[in-house]
Amino acid sequence: MELKPIVQSFSVDYTYKLLFTQGVFESDNGLFRNLIASFNAQGPVKMLFVIDSEVQRHHPLLPGHILTYCDQHHQDLKFTDTLVVAGGENCKNNDSSVREVLEAININRICRHSFVVAIGGGAVIDMVGYAAAIAHRGVKLIRIPTTVLSQNDAAVGVKNSVNLFGKKNFIGTFAPPFAIINDSGFLSSLEQRDWIAGVAEAIKVSLIQDADFFTYISKHTGQLRSRDMNVMQRVIYRCAEMHMAHIANGGDPFESGSSRPLDFGHWAAHKLEHLTGYKLRHGEAVAKGIGLDVMYAYLTELIPYEVMDRIITVMEELGFRLDIPLKSEKELSALLGGIEEFREHLGGKLTITLLSGIGQKHDVHQIDMDCMRDAVQRVNERSRQNVA
Amino acid sequence: MELKPIVQSFSVDYTYKLLFTQGVFESDNGLFRNLIASFNAQGPVKMLFVIDSEVQRHHPLLPGHILTYCDQHHQDLKFTDTLVVAGGENCKNNDSSVREVLEAININRICRHSFVVAIGGGAVIDMVGYAAAIAHRGVKLIRIPTTVLSQNDAAVGVKNSVNLFGKKNFIGTFAPPFAIINDSGFLSSLEQRDWIAGVAEAIKVSLIQDADFFTYISKHTGQLRSRDMNVMQRVIYRCAEMHMAHIANGGDPFESGSSRPLDFGHWAAHKLEHLTGYKLRHGEAVAKGIGLDVMYAYLTELIPYEVMDRIITVMEELGFRLDIPLKSEKELSALLGGIEEFREHLGGKLTITLLSGIGQKHDVHQIDMDCMRDAVQRVNERSRQNVA
Repeated sequence: MELKPIVQSFSVDYTYKLLFTQGVFESDNGLFRNLIASFNAQGPVKMLFVIDSEVQRHHPLLPGHILTYCDQHHQDLKFTDTLVVAGGENCKNNDSSVREVLEAININRICRHSFVVAIGGGAVIDMVGYAAAIAHRGVKLIRIPTTVLSQNDAAVGVKNSVNLFGKKNFIGTFAPPFAIINDSGFLSSLEQRDWIAGVAEAIKVSLIQDADFFTYISKHTGQLRSRDMNVMQRVIYRCAEMHMAHIANGGDPFESGSSRPLDFGHWAAHKLEHLTGYKLRHGEAVAKGIGLDVMYAYLTELIPYEVMDRIITVMEELGFRLDIPLKSEKELSALLGGIEEFREHLGGKLTITLLSGIGQKHDVHQIDMDCMRDAVQRVNERSRQNVA
Repeated sequence: MELKPIVQSFSVDYTYKLLFTQGVFESDNGLFRNLIASFNAQGPVKMLFVIDSEVQRHHPLLPGHILTYCDQHHQDLKFTDTLVVAGGENCKNNDSSVREVLEAININRICRHSFVVAIGGGAVIDMVGYAAAIAHRGVKLIRIPTTVLSQNDAAVGVKNSVNLFGKKNFIGTFAPPFAIINDSGFLSSLEQRDWIAGVAEAIKVSLIQDADFFTYISKHTGQLRSRDMNVMQRVIYRCAEMHMAHIANGGDPFESGSSRPLDFGHWAAHKLEHLTGYKLRHGEAVAKGIGLDVMYAYLTELIPYEVMDRIITVMEELGFRLDIPLKSEKELSALLGGIEEFREHLGGKLTITLLSGIGQKHDVHQIDMDCMRDAVQRVNERSRQNVA
């Protein structure tokens, strides 16, 4: 019996939004309540809060504020529990944190029409988002990122993940959150290195897409270093806006193809994080990765000396250390092996995004290894001279 | 500083297909090779095969055939490994099977442009599909379902999952496969109970949507029981076709709303499977669940006696036992508790699909518990009389 193939096509529509506020759980702040009421005006919606231990340490009153806020708005919000999970990359390295969140989802009977609210840095946002995405095949998620990096990059995208087999983001899903809330109140308590590290992703998007934005950053390196909140808010806003526009308009939101322009500077960053045992912040590693690829672009005559020098100078002025901290030939080989891993990750054909100018991305499909070694040496020499 | 919300919307397009064949890895069968070449005509694509231990037991030569087939078509197919995993629901009950598949994906460097091929019954298809969906946020998946139930239902949908905290399908994702291949060759080796159990899902879709299809099944109960492959192929084809059409045209492929028409008969089925320690096949439990809800529809005057009798008679003729095998009031309460669990799963508002006639679904939003208890008693009485 000959049976014809059955072919079905369909589209799934996604909408998500990024809201800005200060003091999201202060009693006179209606933003969170209104957001939930916009989802279900019929009655209270169950909420499970998961807080990064680092955020909890700096904001010990937060769980109390959340409880009071939910109580005050009990017609819209049904508080179930607050779970505090260990912050930092480690929460992505073992499955106990994911399990804890899944258990809380189970015990508190969070369903596909209830919300998990993740409050924390990029790692916690990633890990909690993953747990929320797989529980019941996806419960609703609100992300409240608390670092510069997560507010302008990690938390405004459509990915979540945890690490496995020593590989960063080995498992995860594509799942847009219901909403992201950037609360500037959390940024004041950041350590200086976290405050600055997050600017690396803004530099990245400006370099591949928006020369004016790069100029804005380069004119405000002093204010950024001295923690001018208005300037930082502008940087976060523009970076998040470009990131979200790329996802929505880039034609491949869930990355079924091989184009990964937002990975500029990232092949080296991922390896450096791993090789240094995650002592580097992701943003710090990205800055180093950008510095290295900019030097390589100069050495392969994609950009002139002045452009390379200008980009690296801006990062130095912000306080980034751009040296590649590898101690042996073995480590250097491991770093360069990242290019081959990236090729495999992309499915055989290598695409590395470089620059042909500020604001102009330029894809290449092979890397000259000798030249890349030369680039490592030169950024390290320059870094040594700066320190000396 | 007042910052405007950033809102982004986008659509993701999905296409997937169901192909029919016999002897998919026989050397003169080009279907599998052509399918992969249609994905990438440039060169060999990496393939990892995962086989259900039950399939392996009945088809011990299968791994050898796969290897020979890949070798023969090496220009298109790059064989990496064959993994045999324990079949049956148990593979979804602990995370060691998922972990095994993830490890094989890692070791064999399967990427988003490589394929995992899952060959087995519904449970293995579900579990392997889940692992494939989370690895690298989704590697390509081909499902080769080997039972009637998985060929007409579980494997032709867009869901995957494993069990956690004693709850069926507690974690999982929505992720359409690249393709499904229904190979009738696998059906010959099924035990009689598995052969028949799979017809339950066909009865389900016929009852809620297609009276002509129900008539076809009711006229061929004898042939189905005596394993007429042509009749079974027609039943599988129509059931799969309706299932896929519902996903594509039902307006909510990833079930963001509350309507779950394909869950007809399933609130009781899921509970019965659990209460009987998964000794019932899923299809057997679904038949019992349909029998119960049809009796309830009769008792609440949604359908006349003749319609109830006709539906139950067809299932009895096929060989289904429709008694509700609960030994105590406690178990009966647990069964009825499934209605409340289903309400929670749906996010507060209960919708149970019943019938107002053959081919006519009818949603209700509350269940009369006394009447449901009466329905349990009546199907059990009828079943006892049949056996006697």
